[in-house]
Amino acid sequence: MRALVCRGTELALEHDYPHPTPVAGEALIRVMQVGICNTDLEIRRGYMGFQGVLGHEFVGVVEEIYGDTVLRQYTHLIGQRVVGEINAACHRADCFYCQRDMPTHCPNRTTLGIVNRDGAFADYVMLPVENLHIVPESVSDEEAVFVEPLAANFEIFEQIHLMPTQRIAIVGDGKMGQLAARVLRLSNCEVLMIGKHEETLALVENLGITTHYLKEIEHFVSDNGRCVDLIVECSGSAQGLEIAIRLVRPRGTIVLKSTVADKSTLHLAPIVIDEIRVQGSRCGPFPPALRALSQRLVDVSSLISARYTLDEGLTAFDRAAQKGVLKVMVKVS
Amino acid sequence: MRALVCRGTELALEHDYPHPTPVAGEALIRVMQVGICNTDLEIRRGYMGFQGVLGHEFVGVVEEIYGDTVLRQYTHLIGQRVVGEINAACHRADCFYCQRDMPTHCPNRTTLGIVNRDGAFADYVMLPVENLHIVPESVSDEEAVFVEPLAANFEIFEQIHLMPTQRIAIVGDGKMGQLAARVLRLSNCEVLMIGKHEETLALVENLGITTHYLKEIEHFVSDNGRCVDLIVECSGSAQGLEIAIRLVRPRGTIVLKSTVADKSTLHLAPIVIDEIRVQGSRCGPFPPALRALSQRLVDVSSLISARYTLDEGLTAFDRAAQKGVLKVMVKVS
Repeated sequence: MRALVCRGTELALEHDYPHPTPVAGEALIRVMQVGICNTDLEIRRGYMGFQGVLGHEFVGVVEEIYGDTVLRQYTHLIGQRVVGEINAACHRADCFYCQRDMPTHCPNRTTLGIVNRDGAFADYVMLPVENLHIVPESVSDEEAVFVEPLAANFEIFEQIHLMPTQRIAIVGDGKMGQLAARVLRLSNCEVLMIGKHEETLALVENLGITTHYLKEIEHFVSDNGRCVDLIVECSGSAQGLEIAIRLVRPRGTIVLKSTVADKSTLHLAPIVIDEIRVQGSRCGPFPPALRALSQRLVDVSSLISARYTLDEGLTAFDRAAQKGVLKVMVKVS
Repeated sequence: MRALVCRGTELALEHDYPHPTPVAGEALIRVMQVGICNTDLEIRRGYMGFQGVLGHEFVGVVEEIYGDTVLRQYTHLIGQRVVGEINAACHRADCFYCQRDMPTHCPNRTTLGIVNRDGAFADYVMLPVENLHIVPESVSDEEAVFVEPLAANFEIFEQIHLMPTQRIAIVGDGKMGQLAARVLRLSNCEVLMIGKHEETLALVENLGITTHYLKEIEHFVSDNGRCVDLIVECSGSAQGLEIAIRLVRPRGTIVLKSTVADKSTLHLAPIVIDEIRVQGSRCGPFPPALRALSQRLVDVSSLISARYTLDEGLTAFDRAAQKGVLKVMVKVS
């Protein structure tokens, strides 16, 4: 089958990549659409040292389910359009995380297109049946590709008690910041976005979000004080947390979303003195993300910058790495 | 009056320091005992740029209360032995923090012996009457000096929901770590301490706390995995958070207690990937600290390394700065 394969920092479209081997409890999914995520771009630059097929934001159709015992319970998935949670946990009786409903932290997990599991930039992909969620008819294929990164933003609501009288700032106007803005405005809090690019900041302004340029952040702080209850750090830069600390109020919260490979250098004393909470945040729950798309609570279509086919996969990756480019979609079938 | 005064990085015992000026709503307290805290040592090295009388861990007797309106409500304090919360808030109607019961974060606050308010290494000290707490008879003068740093550890219980099935590690075996150990063992969690010094680690072993040498931390992690639910970082070093990240389990919590003046350099990605919460923590509630001492739930007397008089104040500070020295007490009257 065709697959976009990362070997070291070499990315190539291979035409004779082996078809997935059947594994009991897993589903074979024919891939329809895949999105390029910043993590894909970072893996291509050597982050995580992943070797294999890239891609973890996808929608596809279940063609087969392997294994007798699960077959009975999951046969309704066959032929269905699905999205898939990317962490495949061990579910063993002695796994602390699996037994406490934290499968995304299972130490034995594989992660689709990131750790020890081939991803979705291919004709077929495999995932455990329990990872799959049927996509409602009202959600388009392209919208469904956004479920994974949207879910990661709904994770913030799982972690933090947001109150509608609070003020939220999103640091970063890229793909992740754009989705964070769309999800967090559902809290009905006052939402600000801090970014660098006129065009991407403009995308959130008609959503009722106030925008500020990063270079004017000192002005903002001197005019308003440190007045933000919750900062969502999506800048993707090592300086992001430092900027967040400049904005957050005492006893406020900073959610870290960017996985920055570089070391950051910063003063920790303000975190102690102002009793700030810094909360790491990664993957999130799929059902709220599917519901938000289905109920038109979030619009993601404006975030698609370009569309390619799998055969144009390398071009698609180059385009996704350009400045100011948001989501790049790759159609597989 | 006599006072230990910090001017720049110069510390001196002055004999003719001005007696406190009466301020409405404040109490004049004759100081009995004062403890030397690491913050005092850091201020002497230039941290915070404080100029004035040092000292914020004290016990004393109220001699006078100034201001007519408050007099009626607080006259019962006169002649009483008291300890005092160190942050003097503005309590204005337009103060976000004062109006939300967060006076320790009031942006207009002064802080005893730290920010814009003379401290307790003197014959007399002043504090707002609402900051004072009467010390029960069952608590000795020396024990009462520990109320302020004990309260800072009870703050952890205010911030984090601790469950008795959890495992806690305290990083640092100095003054702060010793108090953290005594307070956190009240959770009945399994408590570990990681430190550098045989003598100070030994102090917690008979409290049922397991001790580990910092230099053996890699062994501990390779034997046990990242298995700690809550780390309390009291090491006072810029590397403390990095060590904590090596120990904490996914979805665990790191409480930062050390205010380190230097910048720290660290990888933030593990915080995101493992969804760790990093919680800054500073001053805490006095009533639980007084209650714990009164009910003999914590023992602090074993933490006193040396006793001096105010006239020996400079010697006391030099002693407190020596390695392995825990609490140094200064008797004023």
